[in-house]
Amino acid sequence: MSVVYRKIPKQGLNKQEFEQELRKIGEERYHDKHPFHHLLHGGKLNKGQVQAWALNRYCYQSAIPRKDANILAKTTDVGLRREWRHRIEDHDGTETAPGGIERWLVLAEGLGLERDYVMSTRGALPATRFACEAYVNFTRNMPLLDAIASSLTELFAAEIHKTRIAGFLDHYKFANDQTLAYFRKRLDQAPRDVKFGLAYVLREADDGEKQKRVMDAVMFKTDMLWTQLDALYHAYVEPGHIPPGAFMPEDRRPA
Amino acid sequence: MSVVYRKIPKQGLNKQEFEQELRKIGEERYHDKHPFHHLLHGGKLNKGQVQAWALNRYCYQSAIPRKDANILAKTTDVGLRREWRHRIEDHDGTETAPGGIERWLVLAEGLGLERDYVMSTRGALPATRFACEAYVNFTRNMPLLDAIASSLTELFAAEIHKTRIAGFLDHYKFANDQTLAYFRKRLDQAPRDVKFGLAYVLREADDGEKQKRVMDAVMFKTDMLWTQLDALYHAYVEPGHIPPGAFMPEDRRPA
Repeated sequence: MSVVYRKIPKQGLNKQEFEQELRKIGEERYHDKHPFHHLLHGGKLNKGQVQAWALNRYCYQSAIPRKDANILAKTTDVGLRREWRHRIEDHDGTETAPGGIERWLVLAEGLGLERDYVMSTRGALPATRFACEAYVNFTRNMPLLDAIASSLTELFAAEIHKTRIAGFLDHYKFANDQTLAYFRKRLDQAPRDVKFGLAYVLREADDGEKQKRVMDAVMFKTDMLWTQLDALYHAYVEPGHIPPGAFMPEDRRPA
Repeated sequence: MSVVYRKIPKQGLNKQEFEQELRKIGEERYHDKHPFHHLLHGGKLNKGQVQAWALNRYCYQSAIPRKDANILAKTTDVGLRREWRHRIEDHDGTETAPGGIERWLVLAEGLGLERDYVMSTRGALPATRFACEAYVNFTRNMPLLDAIASSLTELFAAEIHKTRIAGFLDHYKFANDQTLAYFRKRLDQAPRDVKFGLAYVLREADDGEKQKRVMDAVMFKTDMLWTQLDALYHAYVEPGHIPPGAFMPEDRRPA
């Protein structure tokens, strides 16, 4: 995919042009283009491989409220914190209503994994852990604008969730309303998040330097998502070199 | 390689036993066991692949003085800081004597890479950057003992440097006294570092809990080294999926 980016002038692009540039990053770099996802959504992975995906991706899921807490900690704007706070609740849930992390564990259990093993992240690939921690650190160390911008990959996520739900239902026995609840729920939740985050960035990135920082933040994020799939592909697809200590799949039957 | 670790009792192992446990980590997990290194040292990689290795490994080389500075910043012990400080000088050099980072750049240039491109780390794999930053963050966030222990992979490094020098001279045209100066110099420098670091850890890790932390720190470090080679293998050997934006080798001739 060869995408040509506009040169960003010193005074910045107008909002419409800038949004187009942001969307180009998705076209070029979002992980829906990664061969691992093609295999996953096309029903080409066996149960052990899907287990590996689910338990590694748990690291990412469980990092999300921590990165959102870093964003809350960065701003003195009560309104912004109040708006952003629901993201933490979406993932952590309440005493009575499970959140996204719990839904992810239900998916993992539906794949035959032990909840405690998944939560321990003991079997996750080191590359996954480094990538997820890089995301948490990015939101801790960078300015508020950059930290918020790093969430904008949500712009590209609706399509992948739909493809995934359809592909899973078509191809895998483990797929049902319970195990896929995480993705269905995100289809409801994400549009609100996308709308807010995009409006924030289009408003606040009001010169070329800030727009460049936003572009870099979104590319950082697409890199960290892509890296996780590279690591899964290397360990569990081809050539299948599992690093010392990581999850060893046993079940090669269809998922 | 299946290594059986001793259970560490609450009061800790004696020094000799504990050192044996540390050395087992090397036997099981040090990156001299990684298939990428077998290809590299055996002359099986073409020039573009060796270039990819050199420019990615530059990220690691250039992270070393930053992790050492984090270690200095952690201790109020002037003697320890004085002893540890020479590591920074080893890598950064002085006004008149080049350091390890400069020697690495000479190697990269000997492979036909542009110095500025290498130093920018623009072409490095995101996985490399995440792993190297994880190392710098580890030394920033963990206690002094753990931070020092994460350097102990030096225990296992002498052999790999010797194998590398011999393998490079046997197989690659770019290998000569200048391009290999980094590795020869490390053969002189490392024994002092190893001796000090090992003695420090054997003395300070005086109960089971601290010994366990030291083991974890060394495993963290072997993981971050291994991850870098997994990423190189995936991108540049098999299946050869280069992530968006990373270095694209052009030269498939022998190195």
